[in-house]
Amino acid sequence: MRNIKLEIEYDGSNYCGWQVQKSHRKSIQETIEKTLREILQEKIKLVASGRTDRGVHAKAQVANFLTNSEIALKKLQKALNGLLPEDIAIIKAEEVSVDFHSRFQAKSKLYRYTILNRNYPSAFSRNQVYFFPRLLNIELMREESKVLLGKHDFKSFQASDKKKSDSVRTIKKLRITKDKDLIYIDIEAGGFLYNMVRNIAGTLIDIGRGRFNKGYLKKLLYSKNRKLAGPTAPAQGLCLLKVKY
Amino acid sequence: MRNIKLEIEYDGSNYCGWQVQKSHRKSIQETIEKTLREILQEKIKLVASGRTDRGVHAKAQVANFLTNSEIALKKLQKALNGLLPEDIAIIKAEEVSVDFHSRFQAKSKLYRYTILNRNYPSAFSRNQVYFFPRLLNIELMREESKVLLGKHDFKSFQASDKKKSDSVRTIKKLRITKDKDLIYIDIEAGGFLYNMVRNIAGTLIDIGRGRFNKGYLKKLLYSKNRKLAGPTAPAQGLCLLKVKY
Repeated sequence: MRNIKLEIEYDGSNYCGWQVQKSHRKSIQETIEKTLREILQEKIKLVASGRTDRGVHAKAQVANFLTNSEIALKKLQKALNGLLPEDIAIIKAEEVSVDFHSRFQAKSKLYRYTILNRNYPSAFSRNQVYFFPRLLNIELMREESKVLLGKHDFKSFQASDKKKSDSVRTIKKLRITKDKDLIYIDIEAGGFLYNMVRNIAGTLIDIGRGRFNKGYLKKLLYSKNRKLAGPTAPAQGLCLLKVKY
Repeated sequence: MRNIKLEIEYDGSNYCGWQVQKSHRKSIQETIEKTLREILQEKIKLVASGRTDRGVHAKAQVANFLTNSEIALKKLQKALNGLLPEDIAIIKAEEVSVDFHSRFQAKSKLYRYTILNRNYPSAFSRNQVYFFPRLLNIELMREESKVLLGKHDFKSFQASDKKKSDSVRTIKKLRITKDKDLIYIDIEAGGFLYNMVRNIAGTLIDIGRGRFNKGYLKKLLYSKNRKLAGPTAPAQGLCLLKVKY
């Protein structure tokens, strides 16, 4: 039995997310599993580092599967990239020890939220950024965001319909950078609550545009009240950049 | 009467090209003209710096139109970007003198052909690059391409079905650069023959992969025989970067 680890890039625009949902859209997982089955002539169960939601992208999602096939890894990668839809690409295929598990062994995940901050949209990256034409005060966003670093109860940033009893998480890194018209919010944590990154991004955007004053984010975090936060930023700006093991 | 100059970015993937064609796809020109008509309540004739073919993109196509409307330029840009499909964006709208003509006054155009040169495709830029998995010898491509600089009869690089009697053109700049897995072929000229950039790109790729030897491009250029050149590189790799006036 071999355990194969894949690094996967996908444009999530046309999918219901990583995992199968009650939706007319396909999931990324089932799309890859189906292609693996075609290639390997075996039923394949793909385990990912975690789900991504509808419309969310990945630069390097990690998923693994067990197989009896003896196919060469280069051949497998080439066959997958040849047969998969063009919005899914296999960056790497490698053999790992049989006890490797993409989800249980992930130490942390790095997500990036991308905002296009200028007065006209982009014809090319329209599905990979959130276009926000009002000028954002990035210094204030940066200053305010510092309070989120470390271990906190992130109840204020949890999707209101999917409450977990334990909403304590640890943000290891939070960086806001700017490259020309693009603003990147990079957040790394061992685990995230549902919609947590998009809720933080939405709140930071509201801070940057002047809706909330200095000190608001701290109050919001301690209030543990989702209703006081900003809106959930749209899915297309979010991308899973890296999974660390 | 006002003369308005637009700078336009578009993802050409879903269009038959800039100009109306017998096709089930729309042209970029008619899409913008229709939206201008909606906004200005006037029939608008848009004159571009030149056509781009089906599937070809633009970072800054230039087009102008005459209007009696007194609409503010910022408002016009915002209305256009709000109403146009998301794969067309208006970067700039400015008023120019009445005798400005986007095509006749263009001094040169800069095209970029982009090759993704690595062993797996890209899920994100799949429609904006030509994915070529075999390693290309960029030094040889660079060395060979030098012979194209300057004034030559480019008959060897002219689409075989669209022959112009005068196929002499002047290439002002030709640069081949590499940024990680991307290879850019930038070509600037006052005018181009039909498919000229894509035919040059296709030939340079054949040189880079080792199909043609050193010195071949020179022989090809002087042969004035299209049949000896490489294939026409796919449209999706081509982008009009800039029009100079």
